[in-house]
Amino acid sequence: MLCEGERLDIVNENLKLIQKKDGLTYGTDAYLLSAYAPAFPRGRAVELGCGTGIVSLLCGVRGQFARVDAIEVQPAFAELAARNAVLNGLEEKVFVHCRDLRDLRAADIGGEVDVVLANPPYMRADSGKLNRTDAKTIARHEICGGIDDFCGAAARLVRWGGHFVCVWRPDRLIDLIAAMRAHGLEPKRMTAVHADAGAEASMVLVDARRGGAPSLTLTRPLLLYRDPPSVTPRTLTDWAARIYAEGRFFD
Amino acid sequence: MLCEGERLDIVNENLKLIQKKDGLTYGTDAYLLSAYAPAFPRGRAVELGCGTGIVSLLCGVRGQFARVDAIEVQPAFAELAARNAVLNGLEEKVFVHCRDLRDLRAADIGGEVDVVLANPPYMRADSGKLNRTDAKTIARHEICGGIDDFCGAAARLVRWGGHFVCVWRPDRLIDLIAAMRAHGLEPKRMTAVHADAGAEASMVLVDARRGGAPSLTLTRPLLLYRDPPSVTPRTLTDWAARIYAEGRFFD
Repeated sequence: MLCEGERLDIVNENLKLIQKKDGLTYGTDAYLLSAYAPAFPRGRAVELGCGTGIVSLLCGVRGQFARVDAIEVQPAFAELAARNAVLNGLEEKVFVHCRDLRDLRAADIGGEVDVVLANPPYMRADSGKLNRTDAKTIARHEICGGIDDFCGAAARLVRWGGHFVCVWRPDRLIDLIAAMRAHGLEPKRMTAVHADAGAEASMVLVDARRGGAPSLTLTRPLLLYRDPPSVTPRTLTDWAARIYAEGRFFD
Repeated sequence: MLCEGERLDIVNENLKLIQKKDGLTYGTDAYLLSAYAPAFPRGRAVELGCGTGIVSLLCGVRGQFARVDAIEVQPAFAELAARNAVLNGLEEKVFVHCRDLRDLRAADIGGEVDVVLANPPYMRADSGKLNRTDAKTIARHEICGGIDDFCGAAARLVRWGGHFVCVWRPDRLIDLIAAMRAHGLEPKRMTAVHADAGAEASMVLVDARRGGAPSLTLTRPLLLYRDPPSVTPRTLTDWAARIYAEGRFFD
């Protein structure tokens, strides 16, 4: 199933993933996002901007949802995500749609869902000189939808009381929060992710609910490593190790 | 100088504080707020809602600013804060004004300042049955100004590029951020405060700048104690101990 310019990676014992050698490869953010989303084993989820499909596939293989609809605007990535679903026997659980999230409606995917997940591009479209047709540029920059478009799509697709779970960069956290509120998505839980106790946050996870009352829980910080970078090899904290092993943040 | 119903506390070797026995007493939030504010030794600061004056006095005794104007709407507390300034020989540095911050303008205090500090009431005015004339109720609830009024006042009083530094409860963090943005105050630095690495945040410190470009640094978390609550006596972390000793967060 491998095409030219692709490679096969073993994510874990249950999941293989074809990635493009010159494309974005999945990282901690994708893994943490999938684990941060609450489980609805009989429910439905949508992922906005799925890339290779890693987040939707992790949710699918864990049985976190009965069905995941994965949206991807770039045809080459949508095709790859669909192939990754087949590769893992998940073609009856993860459905890939090559669509622009900016004009996506709940009716297009069979109605509102319980959870929307997104790892949106976090760089502004105006940051630096860009090749606006390059696949990596589109995945990283707000070219085919900015954070406001992602929140707008999430608000249209998620049911009342449902979750929009997002991983994002701390430096643009305020933009994310403003966009969520503007679309009636209230941040209810937030977790900062730090490499270690002495490091600035490198990521932030937010779980917002459509129509939720204002009241945020800022959880204990997720410190990935026990020690500062000077101590090698780096050892995961107990919590980080458990999240990786079990695929969920909270009991 | 003690009146009936008052007590004298020794804050540290440089500061004594008269507090009301039945009033709110200062806590970690006040201390951390004063230490989180950047220093402008030749500049000016305003504190909104100073209560006994603890935050302004800590800043004054450290020489963090050349002058601090402390605003307090409740006459009994404004009088007490002024007495506390005299008690510590700070009457030429800390000036207390008994004013409602909702109609305060920069011209009322001699022009715009470099830093505005606030430890605003964090409970909604509609939360529970309230005695709306009780001093403690007013200090804790959004009765004489809600978070939007505090941000509005801060925006009127601080110079372009100046700081609004605020300590607040995580559960209402989104309201604070929304109010800051609505008044042109952009959160630039945020620090979550946790009792220990396993605890939810109990406080959050935000440093916003008037007219600042959107870009947030979410600093390493301030963990107050080294160990979980089961380990007693509780030992401060190195960072917390240094903040208490030096009165500042960052180098």
